[in-house]
Amino acid sequence: MISPNIVAVIGASEGLDKFGGRIVHYLKKHGFPGKILPINSKATELQGLPCYPSIKDVGCIPDVVVIVVPAKAMLEQIELCASVGIKSAVLITGMLDEVDAGGDSLQNKVVRTAAAAGMRLLGPNCLGIVNAIDNVALTSSLAMEVPTLRPGGVGIVSQSGALMGTMMARCSDYGVGFSRCISVGNQADLELCDFFEYLIADEKTQAICLYIEGIKDRGRFFELARRAFAAGKPVLAVKAGRSVAGAAIGQSHTGSLAGSYDAFEAYCAANGVVVAQDPYVMILAADMLVRLPNAAGKPAGIAAIGSSGGSTANFADQLVGRSLRLPNVSDVTKQKLEEWMPAEDAHIPVDTGAFRGGTSRQGIISVLETMLDDDDVSSVVYAMTTSPRMTDYAAIVPEISRRTKKPILFTLLAGSMAQPVRKVLHEANYPFVDNLADAFTILELLHEVGNQKLEGLRALTTRPPGVSALPDPRSGQLTESEAKALVAAYGISTAGEVRIANEAGLSGLKQLALPAVVKGVSRNILHKSEANIVRVGLESESEVRSACEDVFRILRDKDPEGAEGVTIQEMVIGEAELFMGARFDPEYGPLVTVGFGGIFVEILRDVAIAAAPIDTATAKKMIMSLKLWPLLNGARGRNVADADSAAQAVSRLSWLAADMGSKLIEIDVNPLIVKKQGEGAVAVDAAAVIA
Amino acid sequence: MISPNIVAVIGASEGLDKFGGRIVHYLKKHGFPGKILPINSKATELQGLPCYPSIKDVGCIPDVVVIVVPAKAMLEQIELCASVGIKSAVLITGMLDEVDAGGDSLQNKVVRTAAAAGMRLLGPNCLGIVNAIDNVALTSSLAMEVPTLRPGGVGIVSQSGALMGTMMARCSDYGVGFSRCISVGNQADLELCDFFEYLIADEKTQAICLYIEGIKDRGRFFELARRAFAAGKPVLAVKAGRSVAGAAIGQSHTGSLAGSYDAFEAYCAANGVVVAQDPYVMILAADMLVRLPNAAGKPAGIAAIGSSGGSTANFADQLVGRSLRLPNVSDVTKQKLEEWMPAEDAHIPVDTGAFRGGTSRQGIISVLETMLDDDDVSSVVYAMTTSPRMTDYAAIVPEISRRTKKPILFTLLAGSMAQPVRKVLHEANYPFVDNLADAFTILELLHEVGNQKLEGLRALTTRPPGVSALPDPRSGQLTESEAKALVAAYGISTAGEVRIANEAGLSGLKQLALPAVVKGVSRNILHKSEANIVRVGLESESEVRSACEDVFRILRDKDPEGAEGVTIQEMVIGEAELFMGARFDPEYGPLVTVGFGGIFVEILRDVAIAAAPIDTATAKKMIMSLKLWPLLNGARGRNVADADSAAQAVSRLSWLAADMGSKLIEIDVNPLIVKKQGEGAVAVDAAAVIA
Repeated sequence: MISPNIVAVIGASEGLDKFGGRIVHYLKKHGFPGKILPINSKATELQGLPCYPSIKDVGCIPDVVVIVVPAKAMLEQIELCASVGIKSAVLITGMLDEVDAGGDSLQNKVVRTAAAAGMRLLGPNCLGIVNAIDNVALTSSLAMEVPTLRPGGVGIVSQSGALMGTMMARCSDYGVGFSRCISVGNQADLELCDFFEYLIADEKTQAICLYIEGIKDRGRFFELARRAFAAGKPVLAVKAGRSVAGAAIGQSHTGSLAGSYDAFEAYCAANGVVVAQDPYVMILAADMLVRLPNAAGKPAGIAAIGSSGGSTANFADQLVGRSLRLPNVSDVTKQKLEEWMPAEDAHIPVDTGAFRGGTSRQGIISVLETMLDDDDVSSVVYAMTTSPRMTDYAAIVPEISRRTKKPILFTLLAGSMAQPVRKVLHEANYPFVDNLADAFTILELLHEVGNQKLEGLRALTTRPPGVSALPDPRSGQLTESEAKALVAAYGISTAGEVRIANEAGLSGLKQLALPAVVKGVSRNILHKSEANIVRVGLESESEVRSACEDVFRILRDKDPEGAEGVTIQEMVIGEAELFMGARFDPEYGPLVTVGFGGIFVEILRDVAIAAAPIDTATAKKMIMSLKLWPLLNGARGRNVADADSAAQAVSRLSWLAADMGSKLIEIDVNPLIVKKQGEGAVAVDAAAVIA
Repeated sequence: MISPNIVAVIGASEGLDKFGGRIVHYLKKHGFPGKILPINSKATELQGLPCYPSIKDVGCIPDVVVIVVPAKAMLEQIELCASVGIKSAVLITGMLDEVDAGGDSLQNKVVRTAAAAGMRLLGPNCLGIVNAIDNVALTSSLAMEVPTLRPGGVGIVSQSGALMGTMMARCSDYGVGFSRCISVGNQADLELCDFFEYLIADEKTQAICLYIEGIKDRGRFFELARRAFAAGKPVLAVKAGRSVAGAAIGQSHTGSLAGSYDAFEAYCAANGVVVAQDPYVMILAADMLVRLPNAAGKPAGIAAIGSSGGSTANFADQLVGRSLRLPNVSDVTKQKLEEWMPAEDAHIPVDTGAFRGGTSRQGIISVLETMLDDDDVSSVVYAMTTSPRMTDYAAIVPEISRRTKKPILFTLLAGSMAQPVRKVLHEANYPFVDNLADAFTILELLHEVGNQKLEGLRALTTRPPGVSALPDPRSGQLTESEAKALVAAYGISTAGEVRIANEAGLSGLKQLALPAVVKGVSRNILHKSEANIVRVGLESESEVRSACEDVFRILRDKDPEGAEGVTIQEMVIGEAELFMGARFDPEYGPLVTVGFGGIFVEILRDVAIAAAPIDTATAKKMIMSLKLWPLLNGARGRNVADADSAAQAVSRLSWLAADMGSKLIEIDVNPLIVKKQGEGAVAVDAAAVIA
């Protein structure tokens, strides 16, 4: 289907205003080296090619047929193709998926007919395939109006044909070369993962871009992602639905803070897929990974050079708020810069206008090399304003980048006036962008790829020590004690408690750890504070007794059936309150979340989310990524808290979630009190729902 | 200088690789209708024009001379110009500002010589003037390589010539028309404000863009800004230095949280200037204000239409995290949309591919009109992918936008392939952008302009009631009591306190409000908690007595000289702790800040900053803009706090700052305890430094 020798176009036509006209035209225009067989019962010649009335008349078995007939004629054509032994068809036609009274659709009938004949289908309702390596433009997309198809290392699988075509067209302005680009349409038979798998194996594809609306088989998708990672092929993805995911905020339980889009992102992070927001920027980033030396190297500082003081000042200003930073260059670097400019100007970003004697080719070469040689510089952005010699200066960039083996992101600020510069870069097969915002977003994506490469993918196979058999709790809502028993089974410290079934039990109380907390127990009361059955800060046994009596009275009143007594717990005092939660996402699998407890979860949405299980180091990174992390880390004279113990608890909770799988609908530990460094973290309250 | 009839070019040359060659060439190329007089002692003809050996030989007095001779020849040329009575010169040459042993510079000498002759100077070290209204390209900037200068309503004053040229070149790709664009260089004589003032008065200029490195006379600058606002001319500015401002974080006092860039932003907000980050986006936004109908109308929801499901989904996803929102359209709008597409697709963003029977011109017209007619839609983004009829569809946009009097931001996603679409839009004099990120950033800027128009500029002239004479505190560091007396003089509630000079005073204590707080008083101890001279939560008179004795002992030990006794205060309990501060910024003037107290200031930098004074309504908006605002507003079952009283306190503090001016170096009220709604806000601790 992707590299055919013979292509038949059923529904071919003369006019380029028709899908079937453009497909034949684009095959010819882009130099398809094989045989094109137009099929149309009303013509004997089309666009200078012999035309056949039916697929039965072509006298051979095409490697692939492209079908663009109206929906109502589709089934007949598929039957004809099946009857002559065709094994591969691309269905451009849409509107096949309306369901009839019997619950069947034309699309289903087409798929069944094809399957019976061993014929595989792409589409329907797709824009086809562009294989720029072999000059196969098997599509009606206007993107093929580009003068030439530039072959290269970027492969695309897209669930939106229009976006794919648009991005291919746009990115060809930037000299991006493509390997194979596939629009999968309705995925009635072959789907995104089939082509994702193809691109991983395809030696011409060096970076893979995916535009995803929904994933059919998530297990397979992420297994392929790991395979791509192992093969050293970066995978970037844009997925629709981020705006819908925002709606999930405000759920009652913290575990539910992780919506479906969050789950997608968490599983991508765990399996080596980098998530982008803009499809066009995704493709430019993939192209940089293909064409720039070491674009996925170890991330460090971003150096910059510009042809005016204004552009370099603006560079530093626009960097604010990004996950990027300027480099801390060595003294050697500073000294070398001072060879070209006065000491007061010898800082990064470098303004070439500040060179002694003015901007010079030799100065630019030397400064670029100096910066790229610095250990804390992982890449350079060259921000080029209009300048009489901009073409000359641009011409030196590809060679230096290749020699120093570090990327220079060339940023052409001057619009169409810089067309001669673009030409030079095209000829050197060197990428560029048009504005700083894109350069920065691309660098952030490259850094993500670089970090994933550095750290590798998590492959956890051994449970943390001290975890025995898989727990098997009762189903439904668990009481606090049951939920805490569950986390305790995974080695998470929980606040010690004494359970008393009724007032009679009070008489046996002795040697209580004080201050204490008393809580009523009932399976029917989820929000204990709101039900007024929690008493904190009890300083003496007599206070504890009277609190218990009080809570027993309220429980009898509010929930005479479900009440299961009271618990007396030691009041845990710590440095900070975290919450942690886990849930089984039905689409992606188990997730673990951690954040600062109380009101800040809701207001700041200060939460980190990961695919479970995770190890302690990853959990620590999640905690350190929280905005309020300084609260644990000794900010403003506070004690440093035991973040390592908190991370261990989060890791153990993630193992609980991973082991229980879909049985664990959700679990929340809130608060997890984090004590002083070396003193641990304690789960003080918990709730869980079991399938 | 800006609209000359006769221009002399001193240092003119034949070659376009020279500044003096390009200036003559660009004047001719862009159809300068007046007389061009090249001056070069080595030629009699240049670029087909008669050339003169000296300015003395031209036989007339040019309206302006442009001088591009080497620095060492500059003074002589200025003297010559002065001698023949020239009143206006543009100095392109740089490197005049090196200071000699006597503390003087060539630049100073040039300025003195010109001033003595009544000659005004632009530059030196500038790129000159482009007056597109009158075809005066008085510049050596490569930006003049554009085929034609498009006259229009956008005026620019820039302290970076290279950025100005680059942005003019780039923005001409988008059909932006310019009025007068001035590169001010070193501002040795005429400066940014002179040309800012010119553009405000200039009837051809409808929107003003400023690229600022530093402001010479801030009073004049903001007075001009208010004049521009009153004249209905939006002013947008990019200012260098945002990245440097970040370094100010981490000061010991909260008043210092407002750095110099923050002060610039605060004063811009108060005086009708909208601050942008990217110069190119600033100019596109200014152009939209000129060319799009009602682009500065009342901000509401952003509707969108796209030519594919992929592009509309991506539109909604990329909107996340912006200060923009989708509209809540009326039922009438929904019904009208359903005429064109199935009910399940009749939502915003609209996918024209979902139209019954496919995308149609009539459908697009109707849907655009329907959306623009909705009261909650202030603008529409049209995201255009590659599509066979994209040029036809684009052609309908200008007319609909003008008819409905609302802006449609046309976003062309397809790159150079969409060149025919650009041509149609150029011919219709209608703007467009190339990607969603730019469309969104521009809309955010337009909304700021719209909001400023709606609300008008603050013009506060009356102090809040209850403020008597201007306070006149002692200079230096104030004690807590002195600082609280200062804010109390402006009607801000402070915690009541009893002051005791020494142990002897303890005997007279009675009827204390409990629980109480005891604090030691010393001018030398700034951080009381760290000095261990604060005792809180004292529940009885005896606890208060022993706390006082304790603090007296520590004070005697730590600061025998400066100790001034202890204060006993009622411990104020409230719903939340804010801090508020004010400082006099030596560059911009008085500033007031408010934020949530304690550790959150430092970690979250959750601070709002305004130019003082402000009224209570503005102060309330500042408080509501804080991330943690829900803490005051009843989040998670909390009591609603008295935000109105807090706002009143902030406004009164801002009046204190405004009245005291540069005498108030800084003042901090931390915490300001905000009680339950209706119960007020109380300043519990304060510190101040007076000049």
